Amino acid sequence: MIIVLKPEATQENIEKIKKDIEKLGLKVWVSQGEFRTIMGVIGDEAPLRDMPLSLYPGVEKVIPILKPYRLVDREYKKENTVIELPSGVKIGGKEIVVMAGPCAVESKENVLRIAKAVKKEGAKVLRGGAFKPRTSPYSFQGLGEEGLKILKEVSEETGLSVVTEVMDPRNVELVYQYADILQIGARNMHNYDLLKEVGKIDKPVLLKRGISSTVKEWLLAAEYILKQGNEKVIFCERGIRTFEDSTRFTLDVNAVPLLKKISHLPVIVDPSHSTGRRDLVIPVARAGIAAGADGLLVEVHFDPLQALSDAQQTIDIQEFKILMEDVRRIAQVMGREV
Amino acid sequence: MIIVLKPEATQENIEKIKKDIEKLGLKVWVSQGEFRTIMGVIGDEAPLRDMPLSLYPGVEKVIPILKPYRLVDREYKKENTVIELPSGVKIGGKEIVVMAGPCAVESKENVLRIAKAVKKEGAKVLRGGAFKPRTSPYSFQGLGEEGLKILKEVSEETGLSVVTEVMDPRNVELVYQYADILQIGARNMHNYDLLKEVGKIDKPVLLKRGISSTVKEWLLAAEYILKQGNEKVIFCERGIRTFEDSTRFTLDVNAVPLLKKISHLPVIVDPSHSTGRRDLVIPVARAGIAAGADGLLVEVHFDPLQALSDAQQTIDIQEFKILMEDVRRIAQVMGREV
Amino acid sequence: MIIVLKPEATQENIEKIKKDIEKLGLKVWVSQGEFRTIMGVIGDEAPLRDMPLSLYPGVEKVIPILKPYRLVDREYKKENTVIELPSGVKIGGKEIVVMAGPCAVESKENVLRIAKAVKKEGAKVLRGGAFKPRTSPYSFQGLGEEGLKILKEVSEETGLSVVTEVMDPRNVELVYQYADILQIGARNMHNYDLLKEVGKIDKPVLLKRGISSTVKEWLLAAEYILKQGNEKVIFCERGIRTFEDSTRFTLDVNAVPLLKKISHLPVIVDPSHSTGRRDLVIPVARAGIAAGADGLLVEVHFDPLQALSDAQQTIDIQEFKILMEDVRRIAQVMGREV
Amino acid sequence: MIIVLKPEATQENIEKIKKDIEKLGLKVWVSQGEFRTIMGVIGDEAPLRDMPLSLYPGVEKVIPILKPYRLVDREYKKENTVIELPSGVKIGGKEIVVMAGPCAVESKENVLRIAKAVKKEGAKVLRGGAFKPRTSPYSFQGLGEEGLKILKEVSEETGLSVVTEVMDPRNVELVYQYADILQIGARNMHNYDLLKEVGKIDKPVLLKRGISSTVKEWLLAAEYILKQGNEKVIFCERGIRTFEDSTRFTLDVNAVPLLKKISHLPVIVDPSHSTGRRDLVIPVARAGIAAGADGLLVEVHFDPLQALSDAQQTIDIQEFKILMEDVRRIAQVMGREV
Repeated sequence: MIIVLKPEATQENIEKIKKDIEKLGLKVWVSQGEFRTIMGVIGDEAPLRDMPLSLYPGVEKVIPILKPYRLVDREYKKENTVIELPSGVKIGGKEIVVMAGPCAVESKENVLRIAKAVKKEGAKVLRGGAFKPRTSPYSFQGLGEEGLKILKEVSEETGLSVVTEVMDPRNVELVYQYADILQIGARNMHNYDLLKEVGKIDKPVLLKRGISSTVKEWLLAAEYILKQGNEKVIFCERGIRTFEDSTRFTLDVNAVPLLKKISHLPVIVDPSHSTGRRDLVIPVARAGIAAGADGLLVEVHFDPLQALSDAQQTIDIQEFKILMEDVRRIAQVMGREV
Repeated sequence: MIIVLKPEATQENIEKIKKDIEKLGLKVWVSQGEFRTIMGVIGDEAPLRDMPLSLYPGVEKVIPILKPYRLVDREYKKENTVIELPSGVKIGGKEIVVMAGPCAVESKENVLRIAKAVKKEGAKVLRGGAFKPRTSPYSFQGLGEEGLKILKEVSEETGLSVVTEVMDPRNVELVYQYADILQIGARNMHNYDLLKEVGKIDKPVLLKRGISSTVKEWLLAAEYILKQGNEKVIFCERGIRTFEDSTRFTLDVNAVPLLKKISHLPVIVDPSHSTGRRDLVIPVARAGIAAGADGLLVEVHFDPLQALSDAQQTIDIQEFKILMEDVRRIAQVMGREV
Repeated sequence: MIIVLKPEATQENIEKIKKDIEKLGLKVWVSQGEFRTIMGVIGDEAPLRDMPLSLYPGVEKVIPILKPYRLVDREYKKENTVIELPSGVKIGGKEIVVMAGPCAVESKENVLRIAKAVKKEGAKVLRGGAFKPRTSPYSFQGLGEEGLKILKEVSEETGLSVVTEVMDPRNVELVYQYADILQIGARNMHNYDLLKEVGKIDKPVLLKRGISSTVKEWLLAAEYILKQGNEKVIFCERGIRTFEDSTRFTLDVNAVPLLKKISHLPVIVDPSHSTGRRDLVIPVARAGIAAGADGLLVEVHFDPLQALSDAQQTIDIQEFKILMEDVRRIAQVMGREV
Repeated sequence: MIIVLKPEATQENIEKIKKDIEKLGLKVWVSQGEFRTIMGVIGDEAPLRDMPLSLYPGVEKVIPILKPYRLVDREYKKENTVIELPSGVKIGGKEIVVMAGPCAVESKENVLRIAKAVKKEGAKVLRGGAFKPRTSPYSFQGLGEEGLKILKEVSEETGLSVVTEVMDPRNVELVYQYADILQIGARNMHNYDLLKEVGKIDKPVLLKRGISSTVKEWLLAAEYILKQGNEKVIFCERGIRTFEDSTRFTLDVNAVPLLKKISHLPVIVDPSHSTGRRDLVIPVARAGIAAGADGLLVEVHFDPLQALSDAQQTIDIQEFKILMEDVRRIAQVMGREV
């Protein structure tokens, strides 16, 4: 922690700050510059974080030096975290893992048909929403437990693992029974009670980025989960909100290599939500893999015109086939495989 | 709903769209323009909202005409909604209502001291957090039910009403017992399970705007609450996230008169979170009232240096006194009173 | 300047950095913390600004301590800069100065009619565009010099001063002959050749904020002008680009008191461009003055339906009369006058 | 153009709108819906664009149907525009064209050394700034004409073409004499006088996206150039400003396939400015090519520590070699070549 003093700061101001910090058992140094006096704190910044140093008389600004997260940091754990699913699929290793399926679970028949098709093309995980967070209270809200059962049955028939969203802390136990990976949606990245709840389970959590969350806040959301004991977190970049309105969101492709550098956890990309446009899904999926992502989360339907939600960003089986071929070839360039 | 066709759209394309919409019991008209053919749907758009018209062959874009919300709309209810608290204070009427208090509840002694001071200056509602949503899992997370009890006791001793945040649907019942107004924080504006839960109670809900939510999404979040039967919703503009980083957030002052125009519900402004800077709270509070807000939500502490959270944006009693004097005088200009 | 080292930084890394900085004639201190070693530079940071310290082996991050601007800073000049126009009107003093007129100059008859009307209500400066920056090459681009002549004539007949935009460095001399204040539009805030050109003249410059410029960048743009010798700069907050799309821009009302605090230069608010909606101009104008602005820039037309550009945000004379009454009363609350 | 009327709109309102539009020689239709009456205009929208229809009594909103640009549109020209340089290099065809070099021109010796090295790895165009737009007036502003001469000499010695920025309309003629491609920087994308000036020349223009410009505004900026007669425009996506602050900008990778779809003009990606971080340049360059870009603009220096500007995002020759190898392999996946 660095404390920059105002030009008019007095010796008394300095003493007061020094005393209050030393009360917390920390050491302080002072450097008299030509234009500014600077103070520094030696040791763990954590106890200082809730201390309003910027309000102390004579203080111009306070600059944290240490990172606010610990368990998600690559400094804490050097090697990549590789998450193995019961099916044997590994996320975060050499393999590029593609998760595909309909936005919302509609009927067993439909989900099974889609699951078989995406499996054939190389998908390893089936995605599908049973609980749907919808902006409008008048939109289809998902089948609930009925949807979870369908996912489970299709999983058993096809051998695909299942990822599905949980929105309410009261439903974590329920979703846990049916899913292999629990998804925290973008709208709930800051729902700390929910994060704590999924931090207590032993299944992987797919943590979508909040639409206006910084990478630092995203890391801290993951830290909530790891702090509870669950180290199986997968980051999913799904686009951020910007001023651009010709696409639904803006994929922050920079965040992919940045996260791989900062953290040991796997990172995947969602080309469906990050564009909101069916015709951009394939090129943006390629870009995500080329940037270093460990996998994809894609909305696929045998007939997007019939999909009950997010149809405008859903690709069909034929397009998914092309996507998988492209991804497979780019994976090779990256020294990886699908 | 207007459907704009591509120049190359065929008669067959048009027929297909027409047929599928008419299946839903709606009427369609077609207008052949010089450059584009346009189709329009007569009647309620709701059944069309989940239909992926933009994916139909021949379609260039789809433009909704009707508003997606209904109950919050001033077209639905012309006169202002005025929410009366048990104390007799009315929000949304002629009175400007100021809600003030510490960010987090720390101890009964502190809260009581602050409550008495803000009441003396004209505050009508005591604010204070018992459950605190914190970006870092290592920050102080609030006193929980202990904090709620303190708020209740202080409320009884001072006669101030209490507003406090609820973050978890499992706690709505608990918070309901202690608070006069339940606050939904910015991070939970899209937490639909929580919105539904507070929609079932009969106490007012203070709905903070999500940091990257559009006004339209905010109206839809309120719609979730009203649709469940609770019509006592108060909007609270608390700053949005932008590229500007010299303040913590950017107060969207435009949103205040805009909401008053679109909706019949009360709108208040939070000058503390929207600036994140103690030295900007007073001028921004004045701006909010001058823009037409029905009240303020302000963080106040007798000694901000001791506040357990958000200290850098907390004003002291002396500053609050000045704020109230300014607000009182601007209220008069607006034909209102504090 | 603070340099934070990586945990693995070597003594050799430290020596290399020290040596290279000392070559520039600056002193360096080193502080060995528990978790991080920190280095600091004593003295003027300017020579370091183009030195890529963050790339040096062993460096984690580099944190500037000093502000990058000097002449615009209140530390450099404590008292408010008050800019006096030839008409005797003073901007930045006790008076609130309202600048009003049509978006674009259309005809002498129209401008004169508007000018007389706004003068009657208390406007002191006439605004009007002769050169219009338009997003589309197919939109009306202004009357050019013809428009400047009209403004000059109307100014002489009414006694109002004139503010008008200059977009091209080649036209600074031309506009200088006709205008009392030269406006730099939002699109040109980063047009450094233009800034240098208006820095060489002795007339005031109204510097609009770029739609995505931070306050710091805005201060630096003004610094370009002051550095050339022209100290008569007026900041004009005109709304920034955010994700919100129900208004054209978002007025950053926080920036008004922030700038007044950081800088000695006057600050005015443009409620027309910052909202893009006629029905929000009056409340947002009030908010600007209540936040501490020194004046307003408002688009007014006797018949907005006939205005050649920006009509949807132009108010009529009757609305302007109400605006002026409101502003006058809020000015009083602020201890100022119109 | 669609005009949506308010529920309370009168027959008189409708007649007035109809009459005023028909005066412009356009036809109008009216559709009486269950909830709203809608009017539509048949024919070219251009004459309506400056008509403030949204202000007419009874109008709720106005929705444009036609695109505001024409010459840049793929509807106007179906096949890709391929721009051939005097050296024979073609941009926008099968080849991926990499433009590389230092941020700023420093000395002939340095530029020549860098040029030879990047040429060896496969770069076809040399980039380098002679006129530098800098946020601070205290930063290095470039060598000016001296820098242009160096670029020209190096171009002649190496056979590389040259791209360099022009910031001032007064310098277009000058830069034209030395450069093969004239660059319009992000800060000048809305500098319409400059756009018009480069629209009059017969050399290619590399048009960088404004940091907060929408794709639509970017297309309109290109339209300014094409409208003057110069059809050789290359779009360069260089990152947009968002709330994320761990990278300098956010590469809008979605924009690459989107532009390729909407327009016939070539699109390249700048992985240096869009990240602002040396360690992200290579993965983001790969992502750009995988998304479908026609080339790259990269900052390269034999010793980034010595670069006079933007050093923190400049890669060295060894890194450039890796970048080119990766790009070459991804180009193959895309059916293209370097």
